[in-house]
Amino acid sequence: MSLGEDFLDSAERPPERPATPDAEGFLRERAMTYACDVREVPLGALARWRLGDDLAHDTRRFFTVEGVAVETNFGRTPRWTQPILMQPEIGLLGFLAKRIAGTLYLLAQAKMEPGNQVLVQFSPTVQATPSNYTRVHGGRPTPYLDRFLGSARGRVLVDQLQSEQGSRYYRKRNRNMIVEVPEDEDLPLERDFAWLTLGQLRGLLARGNRVNMNARTVLSCIAYAGAAPRSGAVLASHLAPCAAEELQDALSWLADVKTAFHLDTRRIRLGELTDWIADDQSIRHVRGRFFRVIGVSVSAGNREVDAWAQPMIAPTQQAHVVFLCQRRAGVLQLLVQARVEPGFIDRVELGPTVQIALHDEIRREELPPLAEYLDAPAERVRFSAVQSEDGGRFYHQQTIHRVIELPENEPLDVPPGYRWMSLALLKRLMRRGYIVDIEARSAMACLG
Amino acid sequence: MSLGEDFLDSAERPPERPATPDAEGFLRERAMTYACDVREVPLGALARWRLGDDLAHDTRRFFTVEGVAVETNFGRTPRWTQPILMQPEIGLLGFLAKRIAGTLYLLAQAKMEPGNQVLVQFSPTVQATPSNYTRVHGGRPTPYLDRFLGSARGRVLVDQLQSEQGSRYYRKRNRNMIVEVPEDEDLPLERDFAWLTLGQLRGLLARGNRVNMNARTVLSCIAYAGAAPRSGAVLASHLAPCAAEELQDALSWLADVKTAFHLDTRRIRLGELTDWIADDQSIRHVRGRFFRVIGVSVSAGNREVDAWAQPMIAPTQQAHVVFLCQRRAGVLQLLVQARVEPGFIDRVELGPTVQIALHDEIRREELPPLAEYLDAPAERVRFSAVQSEDGGRFYHQQTIHRVIELPENEPLDVPPGYRWMSLALLKRLMRRGYIVDIEARSAMACLG
Repeated sequence: MSLGEDFLDSAERPPERPATPDAEGFLRERAMTYACDVREVPLGALARWRLGDDLAHDTRRFFTVEGVAVETNFGRTPRWTQPILMQPEIGLLGFLAKRIAGTLYLLAQAKMEPGNQVLVQFSPTVQATPSNYTRVHGGRPTPYLDRFLGSARGRVLVDQLQSEQGSRYYRKRNRNMIVEVPEDEDLPLERDFAWLTLGQLRGLLARGNRVNMNARTVLSCIAYAGAAPRSGAVLASHLAPCAAEELQDALSWLADVKTAFHLDTRRIRLGELTDWIADDQSIRHVRGRFFRVIGVSVSAGNREVDAWAQPMIAPTQQAHVVFLCQRRAGVLQLLVQARVEPGFIDRVELGPTVQIALHDEIRREELPPLAEYLDAPAERVRFSAVQSEDGGRFYHQQTIHRVIELPENEPLDVPPGYRWMSLALLKRLMRRGYIVDIEARSAMACLG
Repeated sequence: MSLGEDFLDSAERPPERPATPDAEGFLRERAMTYACDVREVPLGALARWRLGDDLAHDTRRFFTVEGVAVETNFGRTPRWTQPILMQPEIGLLGFLAKRIAGTLYLLAQAKMEPGNQVLVQFSPTVQATPSNYTRVHGGRPTPYLDRFLGSARGRVLVDQLQSEQGSRYYRKRNRNMIVEVPEDEDLPLERDFAWLTLGQLRGLLARGNRVNMNARTVLSCIAYAGAAPRSGAVLASHLAPCAAEELQDALSWLADVKTAFHLDTRRIRLGELTDWIADDQSIRHVRGRFFRVIGVSVSAGNREVDAWAQPMIAPTQQAHVVFLCQRRAGVLQLLVQARVEPGFIDRVELGPTVQIALHDEIRREELPPLAEYLDAPAERVRFSAVQSEDGGRFYHQQTIHRVIELPENEPLDVPPGYRWMSLALLKRLMRRGYIVDIEARSAMACLG
């Protein structure tokens, strides 16, 4: 199915009268209305959360923090234990789309998320778990939900199950949707919502910290392949057809990689973690590595409930994603890496060229292949921006996104487990779900 | 990618000179050369297997039997514990294909599997795990392996990761391949191997217990959609195009179902099983239900090693699969059921209309919807045959396969979680992997 025709107008051609001419201004204006206080607190101070074999709400809803023992032949570390987020519910991340005067718009929500350093960013129209929208915690109803679920569902443009961070979540997935409502439908515009073109969202993405992670993963699902070619180097690379043989070759390569790597992830009690301390203060690594599980207390103006406290993941290392790209035989290709992470649904997914969290003690020989491109010269940097991770679960977790372009004929030794792929091929693979990891999808959203 | 053109000749038109004119005779002849003794023995008599927190080989290779604690809102039982097979390796199930005088043939192997009641059946060219083919247990090399893996790989016609029994295996999957070698390639024909057309394999499937489970799952991956229409009602139903909207609707329905059902499968020690006894004799349910884990001692002529002993799963109930089909708006459709099983990779897969293991104590109200079609009148039975499950892991496990056709306009109340799908649509879904369960795939292989 080609979504290209639907989206090209929204991405490429500025509309005659934009629905929301000043998207930045809208965001700033909404942000000012939020009186919000977010503070780190000890885990022991979280009213209804209990630390025992796991860390759980006394209803056992929302999510839990548990332990996993991991064994794998991928990477430098053959076995370890770590805390991990367990959230078996499938969340809904959905953008409503509508054609207005010939241009397709997406309905974005200005949403406050307590973990984000830039507190208010654009999210999809709906981002909610079944616990949210069935209102387990007694919050407000979720606007526009009925257009995604049930009999009032609009025309489905995108509907994909995709994974989340496999190093932080155990087999978490979300449902990424874009649903179109008829142009003549009178859809009431709720307070925090604005109709934006894809072009506007691209501009916000380029500036960083304005489009939240959930919005980025949905945007990454849009494929233009099959649409009539227009201008724009990146879009043009989508439009190069992905031949059936190219897809089959990539799938066979992926099956080869899945056969070569093994992964055993066993759920354990928090008390069985080695090298981690779990107490009333936090759950943390003995040498301060990786991340901490902390308590966060929030009082906010217009979330589903007005004040709450919850555990969050706070990084202790700076995360980077780097995509190397190169025009190869006339088509822009990205260098992907087959990665094993303990929480992946099916062991291996494709990540960006470099996906790393740096810390002070790291030694040169511990760096993954191609890490030297973290310091690429400015003239090769095609995209660079700081983006936030899910501010509902991560506290001040920001990832530096970079796309580095190699000159057309510059040779590169491709390490084992890495492969050049066109954007069109990656989008074909993405449609199957659980193949392209969230770090790669986030960077792809920035690329367009 | 359309495989239709490749396979239609093999399925529909009898070749002028079949490569193996008497496939049944070949199978009988090979069976007679096997001097083979298979006996049930106590678990405690298995030389290198240890029963403790799990049941494992002292190398910890091959597979283990562990416990799982299951919680789900699917079906009648909200929580239970059970033993389950853990086999994280991705096995290879591969048919070589070759065009001979214009007809495509598949290279089948007459293979003895100790668990099968009909000991020697046709298997794929290769069925092996990495443990087999890297020869952990010191066996013989795997013939033709290099045509599937590595640089001598032929032209890939099918390459799909598919699940196995989700009620017996924890997240097990196999790689299903069909690889074509060039017509002019001089491929030595090893002793147990025969070139068969798809038409011959169909005939063997209809008689039952001649085509093993691993062969059936690979055959089920063949899709004809896109090929030029020819005769044959079942094939014609493949050829009805599956529209993009039909695929998207089915995927959205599947995502709805995955969101509605939850499943929590937690690995536990065998000693933590409730209602199960694990001792030196066997692992068995206190009321004799479901299955037993037993020891089996084998002495055989031409498997990878000559004598061995291993645990196997022995059923205590008779398994049935029933597919209801009906010509609807001119296209043959199958009634599939969205099922949750503890070992599925992603919680829900599509099974046949009825998938059940019957036991003597079962009460009418415990039967699943549409179980009455187990007793459909003979004139509605379009296919009926007894097929064996994997004889390398299951002991005397046979499943009665039936396809029941409803008259074109006979109404049927479709229960929630059930849906009519064309074969073409099911094959499109199958290509994504982990969507159609092995019981449905086995029945689909019989349908063609």
